[in-house]
Amino acid sequence: MSRPLLQLALDHTSLQAAQRDVATLADHVDIVEAGTLLCLTEGLNAVRALRAQCPDKIVVADWKVADAGETLAEQAFGAGANWMTIICAAPLATVERGHEVALRCGGEIQMELFGHWTLDDARAWQRIGVKQAIYHRGRDAQASGQQWGEADLARMKALSDIGLQISITGGITPADLPLFKQINVKAFIAGRALAGAANPSQVAHAFHSQIRDIWGA
Amino acid sequence: MSRPLLQLALDHTSLQAAQRDVATLADHVDIVEAGTLLCLTEGLNAVRALRAQCPDKIVVADWKVADAGETLAEQAFGAGANWMTIICAAPLATVERGHEVALRCGGEIQMELFGHWTLDDARAWQRIGVKQAIYHRGRDAQASGQQWGEADLARMKALSDIGLQISITGGITPADLPLFKQINVKAFIAGRALAGAANPSQVAHAFHSQIRDIWGA
Repeated sequence: MSRPLLQLALDHTSLQAAQRDVATLADHVDIVEAGTLLCLTEGLNAVRALRAQCPDKIVVADWKVADAGETLAEQAFGAGANWMTIICAAPLATVERGHEVALRCGGEIQMELFGHWTLDDARAWQRIGVKQAIYHRGRDAQASGQQWGEADLARMKALSDIGLQISITGGITPADLPLFKQINVKAFIAGRALAGAANPSQVAHAFHSQIRDIWGA
Repeated sequence: MSRPLLQLALDHTSLQAAQRDVATLADHVDIVEAGTLLCLTEGLNAVRALRAQCPDKIVVADWKVADAGETLAEQAFGAGANWMTIICAAPLATVERGHEVALRCGGEIQMELFGHWTLDDARAWQRIGVKQAIYHRGRDAQASGQQWGEADLARMKALSDIGLQISITGGITPADLPLFKQINVKAFIAGRALAGAANPSQVAHAFHSQIRDIWGA
């Protein structure tokens, strides 16, 4: 297992506000994510602007693609994204087409896990070459009081064992990180926990320091 | 059952191209849909521009929302959408929050059916007040040769019986319409079948004429 990365999720409705947070935090994170909300309000320009602002970072287009995998992957990777998300409910054909474009562009697909996905789905994604999945406690699920539990951890471990690298998101704080020690974590994704903090770079530092303590330097 | 409506899906990567098709077809359709692809490339401006171009039509923001139901619904309805789509994989809390905003704005939520949804999910959506669902043959699934079959029709009928109005999409032509006679159809959704036709208004006319023949004037 390689050391998990830290991903800044930008769930803003305005590109300008997102870019202000990027200016504060880009030096302290590994990955910058154009969140779904930002992409739906600002369009492809959000991905392009983040690519331009962060030439050396991994940029994610969090589009949760459900259909038209090829066309959307061409748009996302063409605008400078390194990774693009596909929702788990998408037909396998959509995943295959998105993945083919990703390969051609040197990018990667991340399967975004919501609702009723199965480990058979995960095996099918892995079999066609997809390497990553994103495990969520959704914003609305969190607000309804849903916590990280044994069931979450068991499912993440099963995904790891299938061979997928897991990014984890949903109100994660540095104190939560030891929970995920047995998981093949690609990245911890934080939005407001980072950008909304009184001292954002200090929180980023706390994430990195926990990651080093748990996964090694 | 009321007579099904005709919906023009705009799956363009450029707003200008989408608006050209709207100029040709707006008088011949009931609903204009800002497709996911168009929204991800052009942002909220796509919804605003279609609202301005079609003041008297139903405008759909096909966002396939998976999380942050309240914020996204506020954005979509605030920009002039009448209906917003939520993906079936979204947590029920997301559907509830989106639906609350829809109610407040005089709009409606449409549940977009991909992957492993269940009739229990459909009953839960109906119970919280959602009236509509969209049944798909996805673009990638179509391209892989997946046809409308008995299983599709039985599932649509079951959704109708639960009390949901169903919009149907995925390479539909006027000749397909008799298949759906037993379904409580809200709308038939066509994109390239309409806008890509040699004579788009003639195809729209053929849809309306079939709808009248099957569902009455």
